[in-house]
Amino acid sequence: MVKYGNNAVVGQSGGPTAAINASLCGVISAALSSKKIGTLYGMANGIDGFLNEKLYDLTSVFTDNESDLEKLKLTPGAALGSCRFKLPSEESDPQFYEKLFDLLKKYEIGYFFYIGGNDSMDTTAKVSAYAAKMGIDIKVVGVPKTVDNDLCGTDHTPGFGSAAKFVAAVCAEIRRDTAVYKQKCVTIAEIMGRDAGWLTAASALAKTESSDGPDLIYLPELPFSYEQCFEDIEKAWNDHPDVLIAVSEGVKLENGTYLGADSSNVDKFGHAQLSGAAKVLEKKVKEHFGCKVRSIELNTPQRCASHISSLTDINESFGVGRFAVGAALDGNTGVMAGIVRCDCDGYRSDHKCFNVSEIANKVKSVPRNYINERGNYITDEGLAYLRPLIIGECNITYKDGIPQHYIFPKI
Amino acid sequence: MVKYGNNAVVGQSGGPTAAINASLCGVISAALSSKKIGTLYGMANGIDGFLNEKLYDLTSVFTDNESDLEKLKLTPGAALGSCRFKLPSEESDPQFYEKLFDLLKKYEIGYFFYIGGNDSMDTTAKVSAYAAKMGIDIKVVGVPKTVDNDLCGTDHTPGFGSAAKFVAAVCAEIRRDTAVYKQKCVTIAEIMGRDAGWLTAASALAKTESSDGPDLIYLPELPFSYEQCFEDIEKAWNDHPDVLIAVSEGVKLENGTYLGADSSNVDKFGHAQLSGAAKVLEKKVKEHFGCKVRSIELNTPQRCASHISSLTDINESFGVGRFAVGAALDGNTGVMAGIVRCDCDGYRSDHKCFNVSEIANKVKSVPRNYINERGNYITDEGLAYLRPLIIGECNITYKDGIPQHYIFPKI
Repeated sequence: MVKYGNNAVVGQSGGPTAAINASLCGVISAALSSKKIGTLYGMANGIDGFLNEKLYDLTSVFTDNESDLEKLKLTPGAALGSCRFKLPSEESDPQFYEKLFDLLKKYEIGYFFYIGGNDSMDTTAKVSAYAAKMGIDIKVVGVPKTVDNDLCGTDHTPGFGSAAKFVAAVCAEIRRDTAVYKQKCVTIAEIMGRDAGWLTAASALAKTESSDGPDLIYLPELPFSYEQCFEDIEKAWNDHPDVLIAVSEGVKLENGTYLGADSSNVDKFGHAQLSGAAKVLEKKVKEHFGCKVRSIELNTPQRCASHISSLTDINESFGVGRFAVGAALDGNTGVMAGIVRCDCDGYRSDHKCFNVSEIANKVKSVPRNYINERGNYITDEGLAYLRPLIIGECNITYKDGIPQHYIFPKI
Repeated sequence: MVKYGNNAVVGQSGGPTAAINASLCGVISAALSSKKIGTLYGMANGIDGFLNEKLYDLTSVFTDNESDLEKLKLTPGAALGSCRFKLPSEESDPQFYEKLFDLLKKYEIGYFFYIGGNDSMDTTAKVSAYAAKMGIDIKVVGVPKTVDNDLCGTDHTPGFGSAAKFVAAVCAEIRRDTAVYKQKCVTIAEIMGRDAGWLTAASALAKTESSDGPDLIYLPELPFSYEQCFEDIEKAWNDHPDVLIAVSEGVKLENGTYLGADSSNVDKFGHAQLSGAAKVLEKKVKEHFGCKVRSIELNTPQRCASHISSLTDINESFGVGRFAVGAALDGNTGVMAGIVRCDCDGYRSDHKCFNVSEIANKVKSVPRNYINERGNYITDEGLAYLRPLIIGECNITYKDGIPQHYIFPKI
């Protein structure tokens, strides 16, 4: 086995979250305190920046700079910059790997950390496989992140808890807003999750003694039926005039088409109208009942509203980053650092390495037993899984009324 | 002058905000501690509920119940319930006033407090004018609320500061989210304000040492031009690839039509497409530049995200409610309790009564000197006006990760 050196490099990739920088902080914190690791480099804009040698020297930036690291921990977005870059297969582009490994050699990299979602685990798998094949000793460890919570292996993904807390808190608040009038009305909140309904399911956490939260919750895991939805709304109206629906952006009809691409959603001239699930449902409910209907797309703040991050999520995201460094130093490669839930009273989590080739390019859906029989709400089992992940509030630093973030200097 | 009694009644009306219940708490707190006021009633769903004798006995509910009052202070939505009810003129419907005053007599009301926006000040004006005409001694005082900040007289409106803080904080966070890629892109945040751009202007507060905030800000106070906007975007791209635009929902073209109703916004068959300002602008920018464009409607959370309320706003909203009671006890009627800004170093506010007939049915726009010459950003004068209003964070009570609210029992 050839070893290029003891330096390390870390990159961020894919869509950002409110917790992806907490994982970066975990990697930085563990790497800086390890005597086995030399310089820690940060890729500007992921693997794409690395290939163009756009690198931060994180060891210089953060040594003796605890307060900036704390600020970075609660900064949304990918502070190093991100990219959407799917690595080619070795067979299709061997020169790509030669160039990549020439650079890893140039910077004497022995440890390679990549923070991201499914595509990033694919990168982790490919880089580690190539290194193994060529007999090069680089420990390649993936660090998961996604608000969608749809990565396999890990009990849940860093970033999900903070997004879930925003969704649940805002649904509780929207509920107070919709409850003010006596007239029958329907409010539809559209929540992120193209393939898996985890984040939409988290809206059920809005139900507390002081808020009903959503009355109806529809996930992409089950086919959506307008007729059933209309029946559900009528039933909910028996209790109160303001019905709140949480619907996943990825909800599909029985025939497999997204609500937004529903061919029956046409204008008066018969032309197909493309829009979000909530907008389409708003139109249908309005047509059916003739009542006041409003749709609210929760949109980007779901993944960047770090002012209401989950303390559990931020701590775990940081912990997963630290654990990834420890795992690499222990000799693991081609793995994803993940979270396991301890089988104990109350909630406690621990870390574990997962073989990345078994995780990449797979999707973890919400299991059937987390959804009620009617397919319009979350069961107690589902709530028990979700609730611990949004617990705790972070100590946000405000200046002039605005949360403060950490920004890397331009390179 | 005939006096019906020493009881008081308070109602909430119009669209809710994150601070309208803080004003209600102010009224409750002052009324309960005054020996001159007997029972304080709360109208369920405003004047509409009062006419149907749907009333809470707030004196019973909140005497010796300080903690519920504190919870109510930070609860979004109109906790008593709201209505949209424009009082008829006396000439057109004298029986309406006879019925209303019969009920005021039945409940021995001597003090009438109405918390709301422009329509509520109209209610305040009409009820006080009728009482004066009939020689009935009821002190009628309006308490302002609106996230739009477009009421005349008062320096700013209770509810605006909290909405402004949410807008600014979320724009700072969205900016971190959009900054992650290297590719040129445009993100458009649509902000509430049909007639006045105050809340959109507040997005400029996102600019701090750790965030650029929006690059471009367009208000309804000035006509919007696509050509100028395209030039502005190109110029902003000289600095960084991710351009963030804050646009008011009420922005209009030179010819006076709303962006969303622009007749040139047609599908490929020539049919008019109606949608929000940001959606229309998204399409236009995409067509012009062919780059990635995303629109984000900040939507209802702007007026209900009390988890990030401005402490200044909550305290002032509470203060205005208390002041309204004091003003009524001092003999004022037909007035709106409002806020004045002290002419001193730093920020300090005080209260004042404004003659409600001079306020109702008028709109306060953002003055020209708060907007830069080019019409695409806020001046230092504007920022100096806005900044104090979002300062300070509230101590939110969370349970199971969710902010706790106060809900009145059903009646």
